[in-house]
Amino acid sequence: MILDYKRKDDGLDKDARKEEIKRLRAMLVSRQQTVREAKLPVIVMLEGWDCAGKGNLIKELICEMDPRFFSVKNFGRTPEYEERYPFLKKFFDVLPEAGKFLFMDTGWMEDTVGKYLRREIPKEEYERRVEACNILERQLRDNGYVLVKLFLHISRGEQLERITALRENRDTQWRISGDDLWQQQEYDRFLKTYDEFMEETEKTAPWHVLDGESRKKALYDALSAITGTVEKAIEAGPYDGKPTDRKFPLLGHPSQKDADLSATIDPEEYKTELKRLQKKLTKLHNQIYRKKIPVVICYEGWDAAGKGGNIRRLAYPLDPRGFDVIPIASPTPAELARHYLWRFWTKLPRSGHVAIFDRTWYGRVMVERIEGFCSENAWKRAYGEINEFERELTDWGTVVLKFWIHIDPDTQLERFEARQNTPEKQWKITDEDWRNRDKWPQYEEAVEDMLQKTSTAYAPWYIIESVDKKYARIRTLQIVTDALEKAVNENVVRGMRSQRAKKEKKD
Amino acid sequence: MILDYKRKDDGLDKDARKEEIKRLRAMLVSRQQTVREAKLPVIVMLEGWDCAGKGNLIKELICEMDPRFFSVKNFGRTPEYEERYPFLKKFFDVLPEAGKFLFMDTGWMEDTVGKYLRREIPKEEYERRVEACNILERQLRDNGYVLVKLFLHISRGEQLERITALRENRDTQWRISGDDLWQQQEYDRFLKTYDEFMEETEKTAPWHVLDGESRKKALYDALSAITGTVEKAIEAGPYDGKPTDRKFPLLGHPSQKDADLSATIDPEEYKTELKRLQKKLTKLHNQIYRKKIPVVICYEGWDAAGKGGNIRRLAYPLDPRGFDVIPIASPTPAELARHYLWRFWTKLPRSGHVAIFDRTWYGRVMVERIEGFCSENAWKRAYGEINEFERELTDWGTVVLKFWIHIDPDTQLERFEARQNTPEKQWKITDEDWRNRDKWPQYEEAVEDMLQKTSTAYAPWYIIESVDKKYARIRTLQIVTDALEKAVNENVVRGMRSQRAKKEKKD
Repeated sequence: MILDYKRKDDGLDKDARKEEIKRLRAMLVSRQQTVREAKLPVIVMLEGWDCAGKGNLIKELICEMDPRFFSVKNFGRTPEYEERYPFLKKFFDVLPEAGKFLFMDTGWMEDTVGKYLRREIPKEEYERRVEACNILERQLRDNGYVLVKLFLHISRGEQLERITALRENRDTQWRISGDDLWQQQEYDRFLKTYDEFMEETEKTAPWHVLDGESRKKALYDALSAITGTVEKAIEAGPYDGKPTDRKFPLLGHPSQKDADLSATIDPEEYKTELKRLQKKLTKLHNQIYRKKIPVVICYEGWDAAGKGGNIRRLAYPLDPRGFDVIPIASPTPAELARHYLWRFWTKLPRSGHVAIFDRTWYGRVMVERIEGFCSENAWKRAYGEINEFERELTDWGTVVLKFWIHIDPDTQLERFEARQNTPEKQWKITDEDWRNRDKWPQYEEAVEDMLQKTSTAYAPWYIIESVDKKYARIRTLQIVTDALEKAVNENVVRGMRSQRAKKEKKD
Repeated sequence: MILDYKRKDDGLDKDARKEEIKRLRAMLVSRQQTVREAKLPVIVMLEGWDCAGKGNLIKELICEMDPRFFSVKNFGRTPEYEERYPFLKKFFDVLPEAGKFLFMDTGWMEDTVGKYLRREIPKEEYERRVEACNILERQLRDNGYVLVKLFLHISRGEQLERITALRENRDTQWRISGDDLWQQQEYDRFLKTYDEFMEETEKTAPWHVLDGESRKKALYDALSAITGTVEKAIEAGPYDGKPTDRKFPLLGHPSQKDADLSATIDPEEYKTELKRLQKKLTKLHNQIYRKKIPVVICYEGWDAAGKGGNIRRLAYPLDPRGFDVIPIASPTPAELARHYLWRFWTKLPRSGHVAIFDRTWYGRVMVERIEGFCSENAWKRAYGEINEFERELTDWGTVVLKFWIHIDPDTQLERFEARQNTPEKQWKITDEDWRNRDKWPQYEEAVEDMLQKTSTAYAPWYIIESVDKKYARIRTLQIVTDALEKAVNENVVRGMRSQRAKKEKKD
């Protein structure tokens, strides 16, 4: 049991501890510069009991640090029925950039344990989230993050004393909420679950239990843990994890080999079908909005394959208040300085909304692989990381659809030349397009790998034959309407079960 | 009266209108590229009655546009007591970057009129906001934004018919809220106030009233207004407004001439005072949090004047969950592509929170002026724009304090050399610091202009003599605690009056 600690005496007397704290604080300040130069991102996650003094500890940790290179993020309690995104999004949103520290006043542990004990999520969802936390921690480490996990521990008696003291003082009584009182009452259940959670999440980064009953000792231990971990990380150099061998429910299809590029549609049939499917989509959009189902639609494909026109036909019938088209260009410096999925996590659709990504996170295993923008480890690891990312989305109830808009090299050449020769379209064609075209065989291989390694039962790929663009548009509309219809009728939106249950109770 | 329109017949029959719409839509699509090349930011604000068809109109406007170059933002109704920022912040947050279109489904008109008619803000606050809207529109224009304001108009009878039709259909009845029914009942009051608002906000950009009773006519008129306005703006070239001659309550002090750089504090007194003032600040931070008073503290000063250490002494006693230190570096490309105050608007503190800016918007009238990073018009205009910005903050109840941390050139030289000679401090000194030092006289002049033109009764400047850094720290702490004490006791937080009234009623 991790939390069953005996008060350890480290032999330091008051003055010696004071000196040590001074020394470690100075070290932390100078480490800020080393971390900045080494471009390490450091996350300090502080968990612990209500009234254990978390806010104060963070204050003491940061008080001499340079505010340009750290930030503090406090995660209040959001009840599950108010959550509009997968639970990990809020943590991804605040990821520090390389070279900076982030201090979190409670993180994914409190969010998971607290919601479970409050019965906002059922047992099986709790277990799923514990696994998701492990995946998150591994992904962070593999992508170069340094993670320090602290738990500020106080006994039941100590907590009661503090609550009583705060409540007796007119100026501080407002600080005590029903939540605090409830945790005091349920202390033993919390102790057991905190401890279980910690046992189950020691795989990537160890937990440091701090003695919250002595402010100075807790501060000293926290400073030691942080400087020690940072020290080791700097010595070891940038971490670039190996791919894992985790298994996913891969479909084994589609493959470019099976694509029938001669597929066409009769122009008259196109008109009728387009109208019919768009009308259906308008209705379905309405329903997914009301049922709060989030939808992610991914577009990848060859240059000039007709992505833009395809997206427009899909977006047209949607209510503009309920969808976003998200064009993905090369990453900005702020994006490059963070986990490569950060810029996608932060753009996920709210529940009930549709996000259409015009190019996606698959850039990692295509352009970044081919152009050498990331290490071989990094792109090979990405297949699994992306499968885990999409799993997290679908587990929360998101409908994820992925389209590869497909043409052959001759068709591309024709369209490139047409663009070059039409003044209004010239801006659409750049030297880079021609350079990419020269690498068709490499891309073909990368696309095939991607289709094989990331077409899963929960987030399948579809090849959309787009030599006849009209045919392609009808195909995507058909797939989207079918998938939404299924989602609306199935009505099993896992992550939101409790949300809907609460709502229905209210109505 | 703007809204007292007669149904105008523009002589187009159904087919001719269809052709015209096609032509204008194609023009809008091609204008996207012209706008992109000319780096114009375009805002289309669509206001209008409930059930007038605003969502649908936006859909029809964007349906052929390239999603990489526009976005749509829908502003739902947030009751005033839930607002945590000055009302204009939400609009600043979504400003489009140069070269892109933003479509707003209701904007500052609905936010102002709706809240006033719902009695969420009193008459005088309504009038203040009308003025604030005018200031916003002028600032946008002067900084190169193109603004198209549309109002989708339907009669009372038409609105009733649409509400009834939507309510009779099971699939659509959820779309009708109490708000819609209330507007229908209060149609005449809304008509009068919409109209007044429009009359009062025609100074910078005209209103275009669209006939919401004919979808095609409304679409045609909207397309004409947008393409026409954009056309004119492109012909006219980038707009760079002249400074206004608006008067502000200028204090006429402080001035660098009056600074007494020999001021010092006895080290023993420093220790006692620091403790006393920090303790007081902790208590006050608690109170401003509970009273929901936002606080903005600005630090500017000479390089090596001791800003960092000063900020740390001020931040130390604050609860980390209730403040942010915001370091301001040179603007990123995304920031450069927007109104220069955008990056500050987006970082304002929530009510009850403290934001400490380490360098500020005053960069516009210092480094940007001296280095020629903006036009002469731009920095001369900035004094007034900044006074307006700070007025908006203080009108909403924000405490705004501005510190100029002051030293003389000799002291700076000493500190630069000390940094150069201390290995751990070398990162703090760069070639740029030396280059800036050579421009001391120009900066001195710019600082003096800034102090004279932007020290207002509502947002005063303080010169903090910092040759003795300890003295400087006590001075700022003293000023901050005095100002917060005053704010806590005065209890007149204008913008939040209704918020507190509601809250008190609830409790």
